[in-house]
Amino acid sequence: MRLNKNELNIMESHTHSNILSETVEKLSEESSYRQLFHQYKDQEALPSGEVLREVVELCRAILFPGYYGKARISTQTIQYHTGVNIETLHTLLTDQIYAGLCFDDATCLDCPNTTLAQQGQTLSYRFIANFPELRQLLASDAEAMYIGDPSAHNKGEVIFCAPGFRAITSYRIAHQLYLLGAPYIPKMITEMAHAETGIDIHPGATIGHSFSIDHGTGTVIGETSVIGNRVRIFQGVSLAGEKLPPDANGNTVRNVARHPILEDDVTIYSNATLLGRITIGKGSTICGNVWLTENVPAGATIKQNNKIIF
Amino acid sequence: MRLNKNELNIMESHTHSNILSETVEKLSEESSYRQLFHQYKDQEALPSGEVLREVVELCRAILFPGYYGKARISTQTIQYHTGVNIETLHTLLTDQIYAGLCFDDATCLDCPNTTLAQQGQTLSYRFIANFPELRQLLASDAEAMYIGDPSAHNKGEVIFCAPGFRAITSYRIAHQLYLLGAPYIPKMITEMAHAETGIDIHPGATIGHSFSIDHGTGTVIGETSVIGNRVRIFQGVSLAGEKLPPDANGNTVRNVARHPILEDDVTIYSNATLLGRITIGKGSTICGNVWLTENVPAGATIKQNNKIIF
Amino acid sequence: MRLNKNELNIMESHTHSNILSETVEKLSEESSYRQLFHQYKDQEALPSGEVLREVVELCRAILFPGYYGKARISTQTIQYHTGVNIETLHTLLTDQIYAGLCFDDATCLDCPNTTLAQQGQTLSYRFIANFPELRQLLASDAEAMYIGDPSAHNKGEVIFCAPGFRAITSYRIAHQLYLLGAPYIPKMITEMAHAETGIDIHPGATIGHSFSIDHGTGTVIGETSVIGNRVRIFQGVSLAGEKLPPDANGNTVRNVARHPILEDDVTIYSNATLLGRITIGKGSTICGNVWLTENVPAGATIKQNNKIIF
Amino acid sequence: MRLNKNELNIMESHTHSNILSETVEKLSEESSYRQLFHQYKDQEALPSGEVLREVVELCRAILFPGYYGKARISTQTIQYHTGVNIETLHTLLTDQIYAGLCFDDATCLDCPNTTLAQQGQTLSYRFIANFPELRQLLASDAEAMYIGDPSAHNKGEVIFCAPGFRAITSYRIAHQLYLLGAPYIPKMITEMAHAETGIDIHPGATIGHSFSIDHGTGTVIGETSVIGNRVRIFQGVSLAGEKLPPDANGNTVRNVARHPILEDDVTIYSNATLLGRITIGKGSTICGNVWLTENVPAGATIKQNNKIIF
Amino acid sequence: MRLNKNELNIMESHTHSNILSETVEKLSEESSYRQLFHQYKDQEALPSGEVLREVVELCRAILFPGYYGKARISTQTIQYHTGVNIETLHTLLTDQIYAGLCFDDATCLDCPNTTLAQQGQTLSYRFIANFPELRQLLASDAEAMYIGDPSAHNKGEVIFCAPGFRAITSYRIAHQLYLLGAPYIPKMITEMAHAETGIDIHPGATIGHSFSIDHGTGTVIGETSVIGNRVRIFQGVSLAGEKLPPDANGNTVRNVARHPILEDDVTIYSNATLLGRITIGKGSTICGNVWLTENVPAGATIKQNNKIIF
Amino acid sequence: MRLNKNELNIMESHTHSNILSETVEKLSEESSYRQLFHQYKDQEALPSGEVLREVVELCRAILFPGYYGKARISTQTIQYHTGVNIETLHTLLTDQIYAGLCFDDATCLDCPNTTLAQQGQTLSYRFIANFPELRQLLASDAEAMYIGDPSAHNKGEVIFCAPGFRAITSYRIAHQLYLLGAPYIPKMITEMAHAETGIDIHPGATIGHSFSIDHGTGTVIGETSVIGNRVRIFQGVSLAGEKLPPDANGNTVRNVARHPILEDDVTIYSNATLLGRITIGKGSTICGNVWLTENVPAGATIKQNNKIIF
Repeated sequence: MRLNKNELNIMESHTHSNILSETVEKLSEESSYRQLFHQYKDQEALPSGEVLREVVELCRAILFPGYYGKARISTQTIQYHTGVNIETLHTLLTDQIYAGLCFDDATCLDCPNTTLAQQGQTLSYRFIANFPELRQLLASDAEAMYIGDPSAHNKGEVIFCAPGFRAITSYRIAHQLYLLGAPYIPKMITEMAHAETGIDIHPGATIGHSFSIDHGTGTVIGETSVIGNRVRIFQGVSLAGEKLPPDANGNTVRNVARHPILEDDVTIYSNATLLGRITIGKGSTICGNVWLTENVPAGATIKQNNKIIF
Repeated sequence: MRLNKNELNIMESHTHSNILSETVEKLSEESSYRQLFHQYKDQEALPSGEVLREVVELCRAILFPGYYGKARISTQTIQYHTGVNIETLHTLLTDQIYAGLCFDDATCLDCPNTTLAQQGQTLSYRFIANFPELRQLLASDAEAMYIGDPSAHNKGEVIFCAPGFRAITSYRIAHQLYLLGAPYIPKMITEMAHAETGIDIHPGATIGHSFSIDHGTGTVIGETSVIGNRVRIFQGVSLAGEKLPPDANGNTVRNVARHPILEDDVTIYSNATLLGRITIGKGSTICGNVWLTENVPAGATIKQNNKIIF
Repeated sequence: MRLNKNELNIMESHTHSNILSETVEKLSEESSYRQLFHQYKDQEALPSGEVLREVVELCRAILFPGYYGKARISTQTIQYHTGVNIETLHTLLTDQIYAGLCFDDATCLDCPNTTLAQQGQTLSYRFIANFPELRQLLASDAEAMYIGDPSAHNKGEVIFCAPGFRAITSYRIAHQLYLLGAPYIPKMITEMAHAETGIDIHPGATIGHSFSIDHGTGTVIGETSVIGNRVRIFQGVSLAGEKLPPDANGNTVRNVARHPILEDDVTIYSNATLLGRITIGKGSTICGNVWLTENVPAGATIKQNNKIIF
Repeated sequence: MRLNKNELNIMESHTHSNILSETVEKLSEESSYRQLFHQYKDQEALPSGEVLREVVELCRAILFPGYYGKARISTQTIQYHTGVNIETLHTLLTDQIYAGLCFDDATCLDCPNTTLAQQGQTLSYRFIANFPELRQLLASDAEAMYIGDPSAHNKGEVIFCAPGFRAITSYRIAHQLYLLGAPYIPKMITEMAHAETGIDIHPGATIGHSFSIDHGTGTVIGETSVIGNRVRIFQGVSLAGEKLPPDANGNTVRNVARHPILEDDVTIYSNATLLGRITIGKGSTICGNVWLTENVPAGATIKQNNKIIF
Repeated sequence: MRLNKNELNIMESHTHSNILSETVEKLSEESSYRQLFHQYKDQEALPSGEVLREVVELCRAILFPGYYGKARISTQTIQYHTGVNIETLHTLLTDQIYAGLCFDDATCLDCPNTTLAQQGQTLSYRFIANFPELRQLLASDAEAMYIGDPSAHNKGEVIFCAPGFRAITSYRIAHQLYLLGAPYIPKMITEMAHAETGIDIHPGATIGHSFSIDHGTGTVIGETSVIGNRVRIFQGVSLAGEKLPPDANGNTVRNVARHPILEDDVTIYSNATLLGRITIGKGSTICGNVWLTENVPAGATIKQNNKIIF
Repeated sequence: MRLNKNELNIMESHTHSNILSETVEKLSEESSYRQLFHQYKDQEALPSGEVLREVVELCRAILFPGYYGKARISTQTIQYHTGVNIETLHTLLTDQIYAGLCFDDATCLDCPNTTLAQQGQTLSYRFIANFPELRQLLASDAEAMYIGDPSAHNKGEVIFCAPGFRAITSYRIAHQLYLLGAPYIPKMITEMAHAETGIDIHPGATIGHSFSIDHGTGTVIGETSVIGNRVRIFQGVSLAGEKLPPDANGNTVRNVARHPILEDDVTIYSNATLLGRITIGKGSTICGNVWLTENVPAGATIKQNNKIIF
């Protein structure tokens, strides 16, 4: 990538401002930008990371009143605040789901597309109708994390400070949108949580209640992972997908179950890697730094083998 | 969590705007938000992540003049800048400590509480009085990190760019507040550093001088860890707490020493996990990716055992 | 660091505002801030993290039109957008390279320095002239990541969402500046990507085409690493530097090849640590959680050895 | 409006938080907010002062390159900048015109309305097609203001600093939209200029070329005013509308010519008020502080009559 | 103020940085800043223009739903929005009234002062309790302005665009606070409206219902003015105070009725000045540009006398 | 300016996107933008309204501690705050003066120009050295305005709230820069004050101590006005320049004394216009709404002549 002497000499012989305009020319040729260019269709709706960030913050404000969002909220005013937040959430989310549907549908040429717009609205309503259940699931997670972490002073600290709880909240929001069939938006939401917490949970993963992640940096939970109830994992744990051979046409095979299944009450310590569609039986413990590619029966403990040298 | 066909049909039969108002009703019931709601007491002071971020930036500006904060600072003007920064820090920190004390004291009902406010001011003064020592400690860390990292061009690069140094600075600020007895605020400060650097140091940990963390993403140092002088650790290292059995009433046992002790001059390479109240003797080396749950004598080296397959 | 009882009593006997002014005095003494102070030279240019963030965003907007930057861009308007972005990039980058040169040259006392300013402009032109090649390199990376990740729906998702692709983009930008000899700026750019993605690639590393990093949190690629074409690595992988003995004067030895060489088509799974100037032969696979300090022949597979306990 | 003693006593007997909720109840009753409430139709587009401000700034950036907008523009890059600005303007303006059409059409109930959306786009295209002429008109105004104002150092100062020129620019933009039939938006644009400059020109006024307003605070040019070429007016001048008797039904009569006509080359000095559909003949001068409700022949001078008292 | 040659020579003989530090010294002497310095008392509350701006915007959002504040409001959600806005207003206003009381009371030395804090809260409640009446008064103003202005398309345009209505709204808010006895805050609110609209209404003025100001730039309504119902005034009208002789001690006499009284149904055209405690009788008309210092009987018309010169 | 039917038909026959690109072409032709284009010279410094706003706010913070800028300032900390503010002011002002010098010098082609840069620094030092005197002048203005305005509660209210005082402060800052020979910057500063307060004082005017402007909207003080001590004027007063015949070449004559001279102790009431190089003798009073183009002897009173019609 370093320019050789000869190229540099040629370059210097131009005036500098020619360099800029020639580079603009080259970069504007179709052969240069092909496949790296999302071409805008006139009046196309576009997903926005900034708005999705607001969407997630609104969800947090609704789910955990007084911890997130406008904090000056009391039992007298909770209905006002919840009402305004739900309505704002609905407006923003409708647009974002619609934008995701447009982004996904490369064949659609005329914008706005009222069918997709209507679909965006319907999915937003369904998402919101599920909030009371979503809150109960997250209550079980907060409880599990508080009980499991001796350094937490109370459940409020978990809700307010714990990055694991933050990542699980984003995942549960994104997973709900994923189940409803909204494209792109769920992945954008979990990647934002990944950037904030270092915890990468694919929105397609299935996770039971009372889930806890402690510390969490480097944790990865792949797309087809299945996790039971009361599972507890730590930082650096990977539930990774097995590499699949390409199909008959040489294309990558997608949408196949290829990540681990963790049954109820499993614990996995830090930096363990579990690879492929293996099953970890109920109540098993996987110790830290283990590389595991096989099934584990219920109640087992897996440990790394060290050698000590003085 | 996916709605079944029947539920969806029922849902669609309402008008959409009913969905929103019914959801608001459900979420505003006490049974729904119980334990997930921090109820605001009128005129209560509230800790603010945004203000704490400013507090930490002011500390950096005071400690490392010219690297952080208003950079156009010279020996002629350092006293002016330090004076303004110290005074602003004191004003903001007093309020945040006070807010943390309020948040912690659920029984206190009338705000403002002048006793807690006075306590906030006193703790802030004590914190600031300790700044000259804090700067010397951090000078030893910067020196250690510069000597230990062959890729660093000078000490300024460590102070300005190294995430490990950033995380240690936040920890030393938070630890000082922790020792003074300020609740919540220290944990909020270290979690902010965790989000920025991927390094999670509990404010309760005890760490000697000339400490260095290189790269650092995924490093975890638990609440009761004790680390001597001139210790050097890398990315992905966990000093993790042993799981304790619940007490007689089935409650989680808290405030017990349960994390490792590292004596002086210990080195731990990347992705090693040390679990429980074990002691790593002076000058020992723990190689990468090791899972370690036992004491290590002084001067030892611990390595993982691999199997090579062709 | 905790004040003892006696010190506290002495402290309380002063008035509080004396504490602040005395602390200001102490912190403004030369003996306190020595080596922690970047003293400003009048009219000195200063590198700015905020501007560098804009520089990187402009590069992304130019390289991947429609995904980053002003999204409402079509084949009709790509030349306008590319022209404005290239010109803005040139203006900002010229200043930042110049600021980095100033920061690096402690002996230069009079600002502005027109020689360094001219150098900043020349390096910026050279950097921009190389954009068409940079785009082709990144196209190969996006292709490799899309083929390698079964959960990706299309190449756009890789470009828009994948943190691995984000980190590689920042690295390739920074590496180009590193080759041109710009000080500080390249490291600042990769550390910003490190903070966002948890992936720490030193700008000095040499990396071939079609490179992919999946998930990526905790990945470290050291300064003198050499990586071939079509290499694929995962989260938590460290290409780490061997600890070198100090030179005859007791100083740290710098600028010596001390990180691994990965030949073409190597795959390294999550949390593996490779330490020192070892060579991993063409097509080898390093399984997860391995600690590796020796050469590996072409085509080999390295695995960890576990012990299962029930 | 002051509460009497009795009312206050009643008020204090409630708890304070009742006051808030009772007030909320009262203000939410239909009888309270009737005619003061713009009720939102779901997915309705809404005119935005903030976006219109950006629209006007984009127009200025296109019309006067290097004075407004991104200033780092040269003859090499003017086409890039103009291209990006025109395209952004078109996108924003299309939406704002559409929003104005929606706001105006109270009978339309289903949003989005594709007919109005299409109309918004067409009007935006027509507006932009007229930019070259608009620039020539404003060039004549800048020339007139530079010649007429001995304190101006050059034409650039007029374009960059003069509030009169700023107000005329906004008026000419708004007037063009007014002629195209866009509702609300033109008035919002001139009111923004009014707030900035104290000059209130109704978008419906007709104004010839080479128009100048010096200082300008307090100047008012009413809806049906007609102003010729090379007219020059000063601060505090009002071209005011005659009060019309209501129609047979007692309603205000609207859309009737009721403001003055100024023929070519008229000058009006500060604080003069001209009221009603009078005609000021070519080349006349109206001195300051005059109250004028009658026609003035060509070439006349009108002065106030003072009395001096020692 | 221009430095003479000698002074300049002396100045240049110093090094430049001495100039800065010497100037700092001089400006920090008590004799320099006396009477120009508001000395801060520790933990003193301070009025904030920025917060007051938010207070006024919240009032507008509550009074005119859908025109100001969050526009996406419908009859279904008006109660939620009003509830959140009222509660936020109460929180902010309580603090601002309290800050105004502190600022006013120079003798009070210990902060926070709970008596003043309690007073702030009580006045805020009283202010809010009066909102339904305030809305009705403003409804009468909007109606009067719509009927009186032939260029207005509907009442919504008056509420949304008319600077006269904006100024009257701020005045009525400020006047209510003035009547309740809140110091400083009312004047700050009307001065903010003055800056935006050029209309300067003192919060102490008394103004009846159905008041209208058209265009309004330069209008001044002094502290002790009394204005009846259905009064209509235009831009540049001054209701000015007579100059009073100083009292026996040579001090300015304050709090004396010294501005005009306008009875019901008076109209005053642009740029007229009315000075002193004169009474303008019911239904009178004052034409533009008049200087008036005497009583006017009911039903009269006052006009300026011009001289025409050809 | 309205397109006729035929033109519209032609226009519609193009595709819409052609309209945009054709308009871009036309606007990018040299014949279109000539004289309306400030062409950027590479690396040219540019004056910035935003930075000048900050410059003026810093001046206010230095001059009136506790009223403007960081309010939490006490006698203990005033030196720190003044020091930081003076230093920041110097840095920003140096750049702005330099930018103004560049903008003014159309013949200078190579940037940066070190001679002009040095000049910028010197003028900034001279400006700052004059601050103590500037503060005393403004103290006399505040005193005069407090004594003269019966509605002011104390001098702090004048300093903090009065738009007249705000405008005079900006004028005195700008005038000092004008005397030092800085181009453009002074006019930009007074035009910013004009936009905020409606008071337009040219930076070239000469104004004695103890000057007061009450209300002030619409007041204009022209470039060559000369105002003595203890002068008091009101809203809408114009000190206007006589229209001069063009010179022999038909060019506007500039830099000639053409505005009024007000001797000491003159009072001018609202909306009076004084035109040309007339002298108003010591202690005279000009009543409101007068149009005055002749000298007035000392001690005189000038009044308008009204006609009353019943």
